[in-house]
Amino acid sequence: MVQAKRWILTKHFEGFPKESNFQLQVEELPEPKDGEVLLEALFLSVDPYMRPFSRVRMKEGDVMIGTQVAKVIQSKNAAFPAGVHVVGRSGWRSHTISDGSDLTPVMPDWPQDVSLSLALGMIGMPGLTALYGIEEVLGLKAGETLLVNAAAGAVGSVVGQIAKIKGCKVVGSAGSDAKVAFLKELGFDEAFNYKTVASLEEALRKAAPEGYDCFFENVGGPFSSVALPQMNDFGRIAVCGSISTYNDTQPQTGPFPHMTMIFKQLKMEGFMQSRWNTKHPESLRRLMGWLKEGKLQNREHITKGFENMPAAFMGMLQGENTGKAIVAV
Amino acid sequence: MVQAKRWILTKHFEGFPKESNFQLQVEELPEPKDGEVLLEALFLSVDPYMRPFSRVRMKEGDVMIGTQVAKVIQSKNAAFPAGVHVVGRSGWRSHTISDGSDLTPVMPDWPQDVSLSLALGMIGMPGLTALYGIEEVLGLKAGETLLVNAAAGAVGSVVGQIAKIKGCKVVGSAGSDAKVAFLKELGFDEAFNYKTVASLEEALRKAAPEGYDCFFENVGGPFSSVALPQMNDFGRIAVCGSISTYNDTQPQTGPFPHMTMIFKQLKMEGFMQSRWNTKHPESLRRLMGWLKEGKLQNREHITKGFENMPAAFMGMLQGENTGKAIVAV
Repeated sequence: MVQAKRWILTKHFEGFPKESNFQLQVEELPEPKDGEVLLEALFLSVDPYMRPFSRVRMKEGDVMIGTQVAKVIQSKNAAFPAGVHVVGRSGWRSHTISDGSDLTPVMPDWPQDVSLSLALGMIGMPGLTALYGIEEVLGLKAGETLLVNAAAGAVGSVVGQIAKIKGCKVVGSAGSDAKVAFLKELGFDEAFNYKTVASLEEALRKAAPEGYDCFFENVGGPFSSVALPQMNDFGRIAVCGSISTYNDTQPQTGPFPHMTMIFKQLKMEGFMQSRWNTKHPESLRRLMGWLKEGKLQNREHITKGFENMPAAFMGMLQGENTGKAIVAV
Repeated sequence: MVQAKRWILTKHFEGFPKESNFQLQVEELPEPKDGEVLLEALFLSVDPYMRPFSRVRMKEGDVMIGTQVAKVIQSKNAAFPAGVHVVGRSGWRSHTISDGSDLTPVMPDWPQDVSLSLALGMIGMPGLTALYGIEEVLGLKAGETLLVNAAAGAVGSVVGQIAKIKGCKVVGSAGSDAKVAFLKELGFDEAFNYKTVASLEEALRKAAPEGYDCFFENVGGPFSSVALPQMNDFGRIAVCGSISTYNDTQPQTGPFPHMTMIFKQLKMEGFMQSRWNTKHPESLRRLMGWLKEGKLQNREHITKGFENMPAAFMGMLQGENTGKAIVAV
């Protein structure tokens, strides 16, 4: 018998999430049955997508959605023997009984000197999102200029680094001077603090007077309306996120993009990394390879304690994190 | 010496075009020099694109932009002997001196029983726009459901018919009951008058409860905001026009499309037919083939008299035309 903690969504978010949207519950878990395993969470992920997905994938009273790196501590499933590490879609739970259908073993030959938490970040969903956005959606080519916003976040920071590996000029927008300094460390060619520039339009133009060939969109909203006219002809836009609108109670509005899209013959595509899941194993190996070669640098923003999940989630939505936001149990 | 008439844009349009934006001028044209030809316009085109392009391609005092079918009536250019018909980018002119660089011969073997005016419509730029939008941008496949708005217009009416040739279900939106009847004649599966339906959202859902795989966008603005959520996952949107916003003095605004694009993984692309101009000769032959086989039906809205060009243009922007709007000199 194990005492398991879990975080419930008590009420759907209205506007920015509040403490009162969450409730911590404790339950006694039974022994795993045949085919089942008992998991203990080591690291849990808090990601922007949880805000909009809470509305479409959850009902009030459900355990908050999310992935975690967990250790199998009891096993009656030969595919997941005790002691192995997995990435589980278990939600915000300290311990979980699973039949294995929602588990993926952590990549084989995971290096000892790389934290397993990266399986939730650069060598996990956010890293794959960056990679597929660049390769499958944008088709980014050497010599092109790429714009990425929320650039110091879990996805954006990998986007910019992969674009540098591919021989591109990279411009990043972020929300603090410390984040801008971080982007420069990562090798971004240009970076600015969108909260303090006098004019976003001028900042974008100054960073790339030649215009943008590709735009990795994590922010949406008014930022998109300013960036779109600075795309070059035949520019491509990978729509990965829209964090500036996730907490709207009334949808924000902006000018329609159609005229700009026609005149410049732009292509804009929304995507989720799951579309290419047959490529995941090979893609994770490539990401790990770049990390080991020193071509990718990792940064995490770690919150300690399972009881701090809501605070970590809300902090991430407010941009407190540089790099991947992780909760370490 | 020939008396030539031409229509000048006296002042850039502000809001909907007015008579006072245009001025008719008469000039004496000199004899063509070596390498030049003298053209006489037979048919002139009025098209939606002229409204937004006037702002970016013209200055006040310029002759209005546009194409025409003209006859070479004097020639000192062996490539265009007297008597041949050409499509010329001559603007709103009754007679033009040209060095040939802005001329394209009308397709060889043009059938005697097909009006040359179709070189401005179905067997010209609007037909090519429809074809490339479907084949190059949407990649429309048999069995898919396609939505087209401004469906009774020069481009929309061809879009729907090509989609039927390709074995698709076609839903069209248009602005009058007569246009809706026309769409049914053309073989559209579903058509409705967007001006009289109680709810555009319901009309779209009723016409295609299965959702839309492809959307050929001619209208933009609020229509797009209603249509987007009814796209199926991995839906494609070809952004050809945005006629509902062309006459804005202040840009209309609407909800940002990003969230819908992410959740449904939609692809949206703006385009102009000129991108594929190396394919034009073969594409025009295919369009003509479909017309001769009876798979495409043509409708024109003909205004007589060069002096009526502004009225024809403004009428087209108001949706007076069913099929292609043409001015016959």
